[in-house]
Amino acid sequence: MAGLTHFDAEGRAQMVDVSDKPVTHRIATAAGEVVMTPATLALIAEGRAAKGDVLGVARLAGIMAAKKTAELIPLCHPLPVTKVTVDLVADAAMPGVRIEATVKTSGQTGVEMEALTAVSVAALTVYDMVKAVEKAMRIEGIRLILKDGGKSGRYEAE
Amino acid sequence: MAGLTHFDAEGRAQMVDVSDKPVTHRIATAAGEVVMTPATLALIAEGRAAKGDVLGVARLAGIMAAKKTAELIPLCHPLPVTKVTVDLVADAAMPGVRIEATVKTSGQTGVEMEALTAVSVAALTVYDMVKAVEKAMRIEGIRLILKDGGKSGRYEAE
Amino acid sequence: MAGLTHFDAEGRAQMVDVSDKPVTHRIATAAGEVVMTPATLALIAEGRAAKGDVLGVARLAGIMAAKKTAELIPLCHPLPVTKVTVDLVADAAMPGVRIEATVKTSGQTGVEMEALTAVSVAALTVYDMVKAVEKAMRIEGIRLILKDGGKSGRYEAE
Amino acid sequence: MAGLTHFDAEGRAQMVDVSDKPVTHRIATAAGEVVMTPATLALIAEGRAAKGDVLGVARLAGIMAAKKTAELIPLCHPLPVTKVTVDLVADAAMPGVRIEATVKTSGQTGVEMEALTAVSVAALTVYDMVKAVEKAMRIEGIRLILKDGGKSGRYEAE
Amino acid sequence: MAGLTHFDAEGRAQMVDVSDKPVTHRIATAAGEVVMTPATLALIAEGRAAKGDVLGVARLAGIMAAKKTAELIPLCHPLPVTKVTVDLVADAAMPGVRIEATVKTSGQTGVEMEALTAVSVAALTVYDMVKAVEKAMRIEGIRLILKDGGKSGRYEAE
Amino acid sequence: MAGLTHFDAEGRAQMVDVSDKPVTHRIATAAGEVVMTPATLALIAEGRAAKGDVLGVARLAGIMAAKKTAELIPLCHPLPVTKVTVDLVADAAMPGVRIEATVKTSGQTGVEMEALTAVSVAALTVYDMVKAVEKAMRIEGIRLILKDGGKSGRYEAE
Repeated sequence: MAGLTHFDAEGRAQMVDVSDKPVTHRIATAAGEVVMTPATLALIAEGRAAKGDVLGVARLAGIMAAKKTAELIPLCHPLPVTKVTVDLVADAAMPGVRIEATVKTSGQTGVEMEALTAVSVAALTVYDMVKAVEKAMRIEGIRLILKDGGKSGRYEAE
Repeated sequence: MAGLTHFDAEGRAQMVDVSDKPVTHRIATAAGEVVMTPATLALIAEGRAAKGDVLGVARLAGIMAAKKTAELIPLCHPLPVTKVTVDLVADAAMPGVRIEATVKTSGQTGVEMEALTAVSVAALTVYDMVKAVEKAMRIEGIRLILKDGGKSGRYEAE
Repeated sequence: MAGLTHFDAEGRAQMVDVSDKPVTHRIATAAGEVVMTPATLALIAEGRAAKGDVLGVARLAGIMAAKKTAELIPLCHPLPVTKVTVDLVADAAMPGVRIEATVKTSGQTGVEMEALTAVSVAALTVYDMVKAVEKAMRIEGIRLILKDGGKSGRYEAE
Repeated sequence: MAGLTHFDAEGRAQMVDVSDKPVTHRIATAAGEVVMTPATLALIAEGRAAKGDVLGVARLAGIMAAKKTAELIPLCHPLPVTKVTVDLVADAAMPGVRIEATVKTSGQTGVEMEALTAVSVAALTVYDMVKAVEKAMRIEGIRLILKDGGKSGRYEAE
Repeated sequence: MAGLTHFDAEGRAQMVDVSDKPVTHRIATAAGEVVMTPATLALIAEGRAAKGDVLGVARLAGIMAAKKTAELIPLCHPLPVTKVTVDLVADAAMPGVRIEATVKTSGQTGVEMEALTAVSVAALTVYDMVKAVEKAMRIEGIRLILKDGGKSGRYEAE
Repeated sequence: MAGLTHFDAEGRAQMVDVSDKPVTHRIATAAGEVVMTPATLALIAEGRAAKGDVLGVARLAGIMAAKKTAELIPLCHPLPVTKVTVDLVADAAMPGVRIEATVKTSGQTGVEMEALTAVSVAALTVYDMVKAVEKAMRIEGIRLILKDGGKSGRYEAE
């Protein structure tokens, strides 16, 4: 099995050298959920129309967080993202909010961490805005859905 | 049911006025998991001893992220945290890594978001360091465990 | 006339010592406008309902910018704001968007710069979102409306 | 008339996809003013020589703010600027301070927002340093003067 | 001998709990030098008058860096500084630039790191501005000069 | 002798125009030391094994600081680093800790400041973690060791 590339032979953390990797188009999609009671979800859904757009605020927070990924994740390479979308959908069956983020760049490393960070911060923002009503919400299933571009090839979650 | 305090009567997002709330001691604990294969967990566990301390790097990332919470969560009040601890434990039964963060402050609002942000970023950092080996890892169960201090009183997850 | 307190006797820039000023409630309100053609304003107004909430995005940008004031203004003291509101109103008579921001804190210095920064960044965000349609928009009249709390007393713009 | 590209078909805010736009040389110039009383302007002018360089501090603040644009403007693409100049000139006829900023990059999007942000933060910094003397100053006429490079071609304000 | 408080009993890094420490006035002064050739120093000295104020730019960079200390030093507590001064003096005998920074706050922890960070970043900024002329400059003697306030009492370097 | 490129002909600070410089591979190595008593060094060395990894925390702080260089140094161009390593070695002969950082990028300007910033912040972090035991530690000899890539050619410290 491969070792952990973020450490050198003596186990010291490092930002891996990507200087000689080609600049290619990269894309990554990540997803996650905020699980809550039906009453809390109803409050969010109703708010969209009239009382305040929780999902709109969380979408912006996720987009802005994608741009901060390299500040948050210590060994992550900084790269200029060329596209970020974050979608949040109320799902009555869960019940809760489904979140999906897609990030693109042209660069020497992938944008998985940017997509995962966008989902995580969008989820935290949903929690923040609704926590006065329900503290027991849970953020679940944050995962990579798709990754493409770069030498390691395409990855799609099963 | 209470409404969403982060919006005014016309549904406009706002940072809630806490000017008249007393400064009190606040504490919050949050938790979460990164679920992975036994082989990936073994790599992390073995690395601790010799090849690189994934959990140590993730701990620091979580502590530093707690200090960035108000930059990430749009309507969150900035406050100077007085303590942050982040613990990460390899759990062979899961298999995966359990994360728990505790944050304290003396302030006019709680530190739930700081604790949840610390857990989330620690989890993302674990993912980042091990993703070359396993892309299918999932971040699960990010939740508030305990909150105390302030008018709304003590909250403990069941 | 008083001199400039941000410089010492030899003209060197400094962050003024406020250590001995009492902690008091502070409030400031600032305002400004983004002036544009009627057609551009119509696009924003129509978007609110159906195609995208320019004013909602700009409001959040203004709120988040208030928290970054001390990072942007070199000699500004950092302080934890306790309330931020940013209102944006389409004004057909101008035509354009009126912006007003109010910030509060309990601290040793005022929050004028936080309110002015919130207005400025909200205005820039309106510009950014609509610039594909009209590049000749102008940001006008950014000014302090009200300031209260602290030794220098209440200020209201005429 | 074109729609607003920062929103998708359902009106959700997004960072527009620029992945397939060519990397070209980009330049933008923006301008603005801080209007004040003759006495306040005299204080700034006199300070340049002896008591503290208000315009020098504001120039640096503007340059540094250009680098923070993508952090402040939610849907703005991050890009590495290759040149930033900010000029501030005392204008006795106004009376006040004229500000002009020019930014360059090689990238996939323009640098209008970087130039406008540099002017805005330079203006706010002038306000901050002189506000003890005059609170009624106004920031006026922040606007794009020139933009070139990229598919949409050259724009010059009339 | 005392142990290292930034680690718990199992050696895990932590932000130390200062919740129960009293809020007191704190002050710290740090110093350092940038050592260079006489020709380089002459260029800086001459620039002050006519060609560009290296020391003025470095002073501002140091002041702004003091506000970023808790972002840079992983286990450092965030606290709102109430005063920052940074002085830079050309010293022909060294030859080089002497830097001294003083920081104050009212808080639960000291401001040594803020003062040391201000000196370090001011020194780096001097290096940056003059490196086209001399790459062999050295930053030397960054050290704490004075610390007062708080339980551990006054410290003065010998 | 060459003048200072960070100022224009009238002595105004500017971010130099590098738009027309070619994108080339760049590397820089910087070094520095934290000098302390033998007893303090012993505490660090012993901690590595059992009580807390001072050097590991400082290494991460240095890597993360390299990514923040353009935020700290006012006229520094932002650029996406492609590799950062920071090594810290306990040196009983000094006694103290030797620090060396290497940074790479493909860009239009060099990465000397990134390497020097990584060393400086790693040194400050060592100081922070050990200051409860010894306040008289000194950060010494921060200097450029190697620079290559770009028009000005290779530089090696003697």
